[in-house]
Amino acid sequence: MNINKNYMNLKDSYLFSSIAKRVGEFAGRNPGKEIIRLGIGDVTRPLVPAVIQAMSRAVDEMGRAETFRGYGDEQGYSFLRKAICGFYAAKGIELQEDEVFVSDGAKSDTGNIGDIFSSVNTVLIPDPVYPVYVDTNIMAGREIIYMKGNEDNGFLPLPEPRVKADIIYLCSPNNPTGAVYTKEQLGLWVDYAIENDAVILFDSAYDSFVNDKNLPVSIYQISRARECVIEFASFSKTAGFTGTRCGYTVVPNGLIRNDSSLNKLWLRRQTTKFNGVPYIVQRGAEAVFSPEGLAQIQENINYYLENAEIISGTLARRGIWFTGGKNSPYVWFRCPGNMSSWEFFDFLLEKANVVGTPGAGFGVGGEGFFRLSSFGNREDVVSAMERFKSII
Amino acid sequence: MNINKNYMNLKDSYLFSSIAKRVGEFAGRNPGKEIIRLGIGDVTRPLVPAVIQAMSRAVDEMGRAETFRGYGDEQGYSFLRKAICGFYAAKGIELQEDEVFVSDGAKSDTGNIGDIFSSVNTVLIPDPVYPVYVDTNIMAGREIIYMKGNEDNGFLPLPEPRVKADIIYLCSPNNPTGAVYTKEQLGLWVDYAIENDAVILFDSAYDSFVNDKNLPVSIYQISRARECVIEFASFSKTAGFTGTRCGYTVVPNGLIRNDSSLNKLWLRRQTTKFNGVPYIVQRGAEAVFSPEGLAQIQENINYYLENAEIISGTLARRGIWFTGGKNSPYVWFRCPGNMSSWEFFDFLLEKANVVGTPGAGFGVGGEGFFRLSSFGNREDVVSAMERFKSII
Repeated sequence: MNINKNYMNLKDSYLFSSIAKRVGEFAGRNPGKEIIRLGIGDVTRPLVPAVIQAMSRAVDEMGRAETFRGYGDEQGYSFLRKAICGFYAAKGIELQEDEVFVSDGAKSDTGNIGDIFSSVNTVLIPDPVYPVYVDTNIMAGREIIYMKGNEDNGFLPLPEPRVKADIIYLCSPNNPTGAVYTKEQLGLWVDYAIENDAVILFDSAYDSFVNDKNLPVSIYQISRARECVIEFASFSKTAGFTGTRCGYTVVPNGLIRNDSSLNKLWLRRQTTKFNGVPYIVQRGAEAVFSPEGLAQIQENINYYLENAEIISGTLARRGIWFTGGKNSPYVWFRCPGNMSSWEFFDFLLEKANVVGTPGAGFGVGGEGFFRLSSFGNREDVVSAMERFKSII
Repeated sequence: MNINKNYMNLKDSYLFSSIAKRVGEFAGRNPGKEIIRLGIGDVTRPLVPAVIQAMSRAVDEMGRAETFRGYGDEQGYSFLRKAICGFYAAKGIELQEDEVFVSDGAKSDTGNIGDIFSSVNTVLIPDPVYPVYVDTNIMAGREIIYMKGNEDNGFLPLPEPRVKADIIYLCSPNNPTGAVYTKEQLGLWVDYAIENDAVILFDSAYDSFVNDKNLPVSIYQISRARECVIEFASFSKTAGFTGTRCGYTVVPNGLIRNDSSLNKLWLRRQTTKFNGVPYIVQRGAEAVFSPEGLAQIQENINYYLENAEIISGTLARRGIWFTGGKNSPYVWFRCPGNMSSWEFFDFLLEKANVVGTPGAGFGVGGEGFFRLSSFGNREDVVSAMERFKSII
């Protein structure tokens, strides 16, 4: 018996446990201080009424024999996949229902998608980035090439023709940097992927925060993306589903590699290793796309975007270099005074009692940078920025 | 770019689509006939009141800022893991909370568990059996050895010392055969696993149907099982959660291979590729273990067990050899008149308008056998058996 030895190559992830430990120690030494947490990217506003009503109805249905639901299709109920197609149609993108796979979240799908690819592929991953892309490919034993985000490219690395990769992870609006690729930039990536017979895994979890009409809200707005991109979307940040768990993945029917339809491979993977999302949750997700639901979630998104503007406005007035803060819930900035990520973490905690996330936790390219999240309460964000101004 | 070529070795699964096709054609030719479906193993009774009430409360909580829940631990909320430990304690088995991983179902976990094992391991799988074990190991490219279930061993194959395997799948009470291993038989498997440094993946999804006090309700009732077994459990059949999606997997802390804790490997896998079960569903699952919940689900289990008895009693009176029908929701029998599985399927559909599942769909060892499920309504089961008696 042998374990998967690739797991031995994983680095232990101490980011959020280290943060918790340092905050706990600080709180212990300073019992009177009010700590404001703008670290973890979790939402704080409750589910909107349209979603709550839909889920309440669905719970009632599950309690009566006439309306009880057992196994559904692994890829999701038709009512939800239709609603998702409608949402894309409103963006000007036509999807077939069988191109949409409902899932329990983008994290699961960006992790599990590797199942359908050979472990000998070379993977291109931005640095800094959401750690799941790296870790799941280490688990699979794939070779990873990093592309550096930095001030020069605005943390939006572009393809380099001499670098050859088979699988490319992109996340836009980006976690953790908040940077958003333009249509032209995504066009370069699509060209590169087609040229190299590669597949782009596009994490679109923050698409709903884009309000600049010139920026893409789906990579399928780019010509020929259907030939080379799988898009991962989520209700987590869009509709506050971080504890409710629903997302979806689009695998276009035109996406063929080794003469095989990736759509059919993913269908086979999901029907074999997944049993679908709870009926109750799918009814809640469907309600997100109702006229009331869309209006209600937009209020929350605007609330968070206003928080982001308060944060980025403060940085701008202090002359601190940053990305995000617009079209994104995250603000990513150079640590003042040339501090390292963790030095600034301690400084901000000690002097302002504010918790953020050290950029170094997202990859070596994140060293010297820092992330603040806009998912807190308005009062907390305003207080945190007042304190920030008083110490920088 | 290369796909995972192992997928090319999967056989297309036509079992349930073939059934649907034949039933559809029959219904088209015979519009007046009332067809009774005892095929797919899906439950029909609604969720019990204790579960519905708990989920309704949880939905309300998610709609208010003070009680809203965002990300929870990937391995499940402490309240549910504690309730599961309590359920095991009542069986006389002591578990630590960190040995329990809440999941969206046993299918996902029996499929995904392969992530933590090397693809060079040899896998031992019963034939006939639930197809997910075979398909997920074909996807991973592992060598599979089959162990035959048949009339001689009562579809409960036992270890053969000359057969060497690293990973062994067992399912008891079994799907599809309904056969249940005794404690002595499971003891032989535990001995074999320890002797061979192997790991047993024990699918316990039907444990709640065991009412014979002498039969095991968890493999951890067997001495030293904690050194070699991962147990997969599910609320699907226990509490009607097939459309609500919750299960759990027990990975004992004492389970070490290659000097690595399988518990820590699975924790890493789940925290990287899974984001936990919806809060609402976990509250529903917790309510299953309340005194009212346990009493209410027992009523449903008894109802299905009585159905199983009606089916197996009919077979016994006709002198047909079968397994299951007691301590299991499934009845598995030799097709009368030496018919093949599909011949008998057509015969039963044409003559009695009853739909079952051909045993050949669960592996070559299932040829000549047939599965009936007890998850239907009482009236349907009684009518189906009346019709059965009239044609056999």
